[in-house]
Amino acid sequence: MKVLMLIVDGMADRSVGGRTPLDSARTPNLDFLARKGINGIMDTIAPGIRPGSDTAHLSILGYDPFRYYTGRGPIEACGAGIEVRPGDIAFRVNFGTVEGTGSVFDKVVVDRRAGRIQDKQVLVDAVNREVKIEGVEFVLGNASGHRAALVFRGENLSDRITDSDPKKIGEKVKRVKALDSEAEFTARVVNEFIEKSHEVLDSHPFNEERAKKGLLKANVLLLRGVGKAVHVPSFEERYGMRMAVIAGTTLIKGIGRLLKADVIENERFTGSKDTDLELKVKTAISSLETHDFVLLHIKAPDEFGHDGDFERKREFIEKIDSAIKPLTELDFSEVCLALLADHTTPVTVKDHTADPVPVTIVCEGVRSDDVERYSEFQAYKGGLCRIRGQDLMNIILDLIGKSKKYGA
Amino acid sequence: MKVLMLIVDGMADRSVGGRTPLDSARTPNLDFLARKGINGIMDTIAPGIRPGSDTAHLSILGYDPFRYYTGRGPIEACGAGIEVRPGDIAFRVNFGTVEGTGSVFDKVVVDRRAGRIQDKQVLVDAVNREVKIEGVEFVLGNASGHRAALVFRGENLSDRITDSDPKKIGEKVKRVKALDSEAEFTARVVNEFIEKSHEVLDSHPFNEERAKKGLLKANVLLLRGVGKAVHVPSFEERYGMRMAVIAGTTLIKGIGRLLKADVIENERFTGSKDTDLELKVKTAISSLETHDFVLLHIKAPDEFGHDGDFERKREFIEKIDSAIKPLTELDFSEVCLALLADHTTPVTVKDHTADPVPVTIVCEGVRSDDVERYSEFQAYKGGLCRIRGQDLMNIILDLIGKSKKYGA
Repeated sequence: MKVLMLIVDGMADRSVGGRTPLDSARTPNLDFLARKGINGIMDTIAPGIRPGSDTAHLSILGYDPFRYYTGRGPIEACGAGIEVRPGDIAFRVNFGTVEGTGSVFDKVVVDRRAGRIQDKQVLVDAVNREVKIEGVEFVLGNASGHRAALVFRGENLSDRITDSDPKKIGEKVKRVKALDSEAEFTARVVNEFIEKSHEVLDSHPFNEERAKKGLLKANVLLLRGVGKAVHVPSFEERYGMRMAVIAGTTLIKGIGRLLKADVIENERFTGSKDTDLELKVKTAISSLETHDFVLLHIKAPDEFGHDGDFERKREFIEKIDSAIKPLTELDFSEVCLALLADHTTPVTVKDHTADPVPVTIVCEGVRSDDVERYSEFQAYKGGLCRIRGQDLMNIILDLIGKSKKYGA
Repeated sequence: MKVLMLIVDGMADRSVGGRTPLDSARTPNLDFLARKGINGIMDTIAPGIRPGSDTAHLSILGYDPFRYYTGRGPIEACGAGIEVRPGDIAFRVNFGTVEGTGSVFDKVVVDRRAGRIQDKQVLVDAVNREVKIEGVEFVLGNASGHRAALVFRGENLSDRITDSDPKKIGEKVKRVKALDSEAEFTARVVNEFIEKSHEVLDSHPFNEERAKKGLLKANVLLLRGVGKAVHVPSFEERYGMRMAVIAGTTLIKGIGRLLKADVIENERFTGSKDTDLELKVKTAISSLETHDFVLLHIKAPDEFGHDGDFERKREFIEKIDSAIKPLTELDFSEVCLALLADHTTPVTVKDHTADPVPVTIVCEGVRSDDVERYSEFQAYKGGLCRIRGQDLMNIILDLIGKSKKYGA
């Protein structure tokens, strides 16, 4: 048996006058799955713990985030295609713009996205080629738009350091500080890197050219989300199943790469409201031919949650419902389907909250229950009662006959 | 207040076209208890963890199996009446038959049960008396049929060794191998024991006699399920309650002996479908006079699950329902009754699965709920929601007024 896991980012919500976007949406296909399957609510990490999408996905895939999540840096670095090794120190990076004179740390950030620069591979290559730091190796990896990731590798590195990104325009680039004495070497080399990469970038012909055109120079690397990479067993190592990830969002692709899954790339998977939902669903179904476990991730409902837009969140959930019609036609004696959100993003809060998410599991033999609709107001009445994210993989493995008996 | 815990082995099932053997059985007495009590579903170990009957029973009795379960050997040894001590290395043993010449490890297993030999005490005694192994003590304990248990005691023993039982006929007896260097001494003494016990058995007059009658010689001990015994506090030590175990199955009697309970023996408790259900129930009720906690175990539904026989599983559950009628007449102000399965054994899977089991607790003051029937399709709607095996004893102790207040 194969597994298809559909995770709709931030789809769940809180009550707004007794309704939620999901509950008030017309969702015949989601409801079909809820009727056919077993339902419950799930704390993706634990009750009252407010998840990020990264920690939630790790937990849902059976990886304890308290053990395997060491900050956003290592995941972004995987997402940017860097081969991250245990002990590496990794950062999320923005290409930004600074103005002023003297050291980079005396200059002021005028744009944290360098005018939303897109095509910057030449700058990434220049930094990798021209910057040299004594006693440490580094890799700068390119990502979409103004984004990048950075990894330091060597002896005596520590992640107990602060960000260089001031996170506000009009402020100076922050000198990285050690949070304990063992991190002083790391802080020194990272600051040296920030200075030297600024020199390379500021004088690069590509940036000179941008300046001539009146565009902002991408002349600084703003570092945040530092984390020390740990050994994370691959999904295949852990479960004996080959995973495909169908996602447009860099973060989720990063999770996929962290777990050594095959991330199926397609420019029509945008990780936003303009994504090609039908193509994603089609690709998910065809990936079941080549993979044992398919993770299909849809991002936009989370964005509408962050925007506080009830109506557009509801409408997008209806679009998802139409697009997933083919999933209702799967042969559930061959495929186990799990339907869930990674967390709640209430339109009233405009951020993630810890409210549990509805979860549905459909496969042959599952004890279906009386739940008639896929909704926050129905799921808790289902046969799963309340479970945790880290239970989900074990439950699925057992349903598809891949669990090991403990005892006799 | 006293406690009566009725555990029906493998009674729960998955959905077969919307029904299960339990759900489709006519069970007025089980249903009476469900109506009278509080209901829920229970992961006997944890969600998605597929239990053995041994690990499940430990967990249900409040003993963390990850701490106290060290393999089947120590439990079988307790079941065979050996006084197992912490540090002992214990095995499950079959009396089998080998043929061939030379060392026992060059001979071929022609029967793993020595023609289903029954009365073999004389052979057990001969091995205990005649085999001597330098540097280590051992005890061979008799069990029913072809079964036995074996314990080694001494310095520097390790359970990091392989089985000698090839588990297939037509194969040679396997030489026990050390899985790490510290286990080499153990492997050597165990192999020496296998060789010397074979010599004693093969030439024993009892076996010579069998051979003359055309019966298979019980001339080899096949070892498996090795485990190192740990200290397990007795049930009485832990809970201040004297436990009686009413069971036909060796494994469950072994759990009882491991916890220093009184195992009530009766040849009419067969641990199978021909057991005397009425007598078991009667014995359970009368044991409430002499004991604080009575564990009544009924095995057969698990066997029908392993056989994949929906109809006979359903019918046997109906027989149980009739037999337990006297339990509905208990005074629940004096007895707290818990009704549960130790795990699910779906007829479609023919083995244990991790699906949670229905659990009902009946006693005065319990918050009864809307559940009308004892069924997988009803229990999850009950007032207990979803609990774990290791919660159950604590809940019961609290209901009977034996829990300790934590704090002021």
